Amino acid sequence: MNFSYKNIDDAYSKIKNKIIKTPLISNDFINKKFDAKIFFKLENLQTTGSFKFRGATHKISKLGEDDKRNGVVAYSSGNHAQAVAYASLQNQISCKIIMPNNAPKIKMENTKKYKAEVILYDPSTQSREKIGEKISKDENRTLIRPYDDLDVIAGQGTAGLEIFDQLKEYNIVPDIYLCCCGGGGLIAGTSTYLKYKFKNIESYSVEPYGFDDTKKSLNSLQILANEQGHSSICDAIITPEPGKLTFPINLQNLKNGLVVRDDEVKSSIKFFAEHLKIIIEPGGAVAATAALTKKIDMKNKTVVVMISGGNIDLDMFANL
Amino acid sequence: MNFSYKNIDDAYSKIKNKIIKTPLISNDFINKKFDAKIFFKLENLQTTGSFKFRGATHKISKLGEDDKRNGVVAYSSGNHAQAVAYASLQNQISCKIIMPNNAPKIKMENTKKYKAEVILYDPSTQSREKIGEKISKDENRTLIRPYDDLDVIAGQGTAGLEIFDQLKEYNIVPDIYLCCCGGGGLIAGTSTYLKYKFKNIESYSVEPYGFDDTKKSLNSLQILANEQGHSSICDAIITPEPGKLTFPINLQNLKNGLVVRDDEVKSSIKFFAEHLKIIIEPGGAVAATAALTKKIDMKNKTVVVMISGGNIDLDMFANL
Repeated sequence: MNFSYKNIDDAYSKIKNKIIKTPLISNDFINKKFDAKIFFKLENLQTTGSFKFRGATHKISKLGEDDKRNGVVAYSSGNHAQAVAYASLQNQISCKIIMPNNAPKIKMENTKKYKAEVILYDPSTQSREKIGEKISKDENRTLIRPYDDLDVIAGQGTAGLEIFDQLKEYNIVPDIYLCCCGGGGLIAGTSTYLKYKFKNIESYSVEPYGFDDTKKSLNSLQILANEQGHSSICDAIITPEPGKLTFPINLQNLKNGLVVRDDEVKSSIKFFAEHLKIIIEPGGAVAATAALTKKIDMKNKTVVVMISGGNIDLDMFANL
Repeated sequence: MNFSYKNIDDAYSKIKNKIIKTPLISNDFINKKFDAKIFFKLENLQTTGSFKFRGATHKISKLGEDDKRNGVVAYSSGNHAQAVAYASLQNQISCKIIMPNNAPKIKMENTKKYKAEVILYDPSTQSREKIGEKISKDENRTLIRPYDDLDVIAGQGTAGLEIFDQLKEYNIVPDIYLCCCGGGGLIAGTSTYLKYKFKNIESYSVEPYGFDDTKKSLNSLQILANEQGHSSICDAIITPEPGKLTFPINLQNLKNGLVVRDDEVKSSIKFFAEHLKIIIEPGGAVAATAALTKKIDMKNKTVVVMISGGNIDLDMFANL
């Protein structure tokens, strides 16, 4: 497989005027509290509320005229759905999205708001991959996979390019990178770029308890699936197992995996609302939660934390 | 009075490494909805949750060694309080803050968290200015006024310098600037800088209904006080009348004043939580509210909107 920082440089040159260069912020009060210099990359402020817009925009920018005419199809619990829907709308491309019937309301509503045709399936009995492949074949639509696609991974990786750019402004070299991990596209792309620019950086995936397939797979050097029977509020990063394309990249780049519990995630969403005035969704908050709960020694270190999305139902947010 | 962009350039050179260069963001979906290009300056992400940290940091950076030893005193409903308290803590300066006994819980708690001594007063019967001046005199403490101080105005103005800097990156020239207005320090400073850089920009103050003293004063070319008997959720910008130093500056810089209602502010706080994933306090949201409710024609215009603070009690936020 041929994937490197060059794919990400190429992707950035294609999409940089279409995405938001999201802020990288540091909070003096939090830094003092943790005796560390922590930078938060705010992809919750990205268009459509998550980093997924980077990969979707990149993938669509590479479609030929025929592909565009035939349209696209994607499956997603919500953030990839909104991203593909909105990137399609901007390019006047027909878009079908396959979503689980239990997806968060805000994600379903936004996907429809962006004019995609939403097809619901029952995740307990149906395979979204099979539905997606059938529609793709029957209707000649390009299937935009959520993570197992090098163009998508390169698109997500542009967040890492921006982090480098933003740290360079202050001549800062980070020691640690913490990033959420579902299928692993975001961390594969961003860790590739950060490792290229910062040779000694230690990157960690962060996953919710019961869905630490990447951590287990990293530790056993092979793709392992999650045990059945768990649940988590972190809907955005609940995947059965690491991606076939993302895992080899992550195996090369990551030092290890960290795990956080739902109750810790809830507390950290509240902490960031109070201290950073931002709204984070559960799946987008796991890396920040790992930092707040000190799953790793950060003392006197410079740490980059990915905050990947903010699409939480406001009712749920208010309840926290 | 001698106040110009030079005061702001000087202030920035003193404080730029102590404050957050807050993001200036634009959201494609919102732009399409309003047929305009709108940029939001996120001072709710500033240290202590509002722009007030700029002015407080600047004022304190100019104190002599004796002044520092004697300490400072300030009066404030909350945002200036937190800012002065935290800037004092960073500089190991003794700090007393005079706050109304009905100040929002989050603001009072944060001020104490930053180790200031909080002195409560009853705003219906006591004058905070008199209490402040007495303590200042009796204890030789420097009184840091919330807006009627040129160093404070210059400090707040650095947010305007950053806006210029951030727009320049994309070669963008704004047509309109919307900014909240209580005592008028933030808008006096920022509008001075923006007018210096963008000769044709039209700047507007935005105030809550019943507290539009600046609009009335602008229209009658003299300082007028608010009528008695109104109330508003916009605690941060409830002031009896324009400042003696800020008003002449604003009279020179502003095209007019706009007014928004509390129910409009509530809706817009919710809108920005959904669409920008950020938490804004009522007083910090009035300029954004004026944009959302189209108090001014923005069609095909480039508009800069100041979001000045995010210190809202989370219970109140949840209720919205």
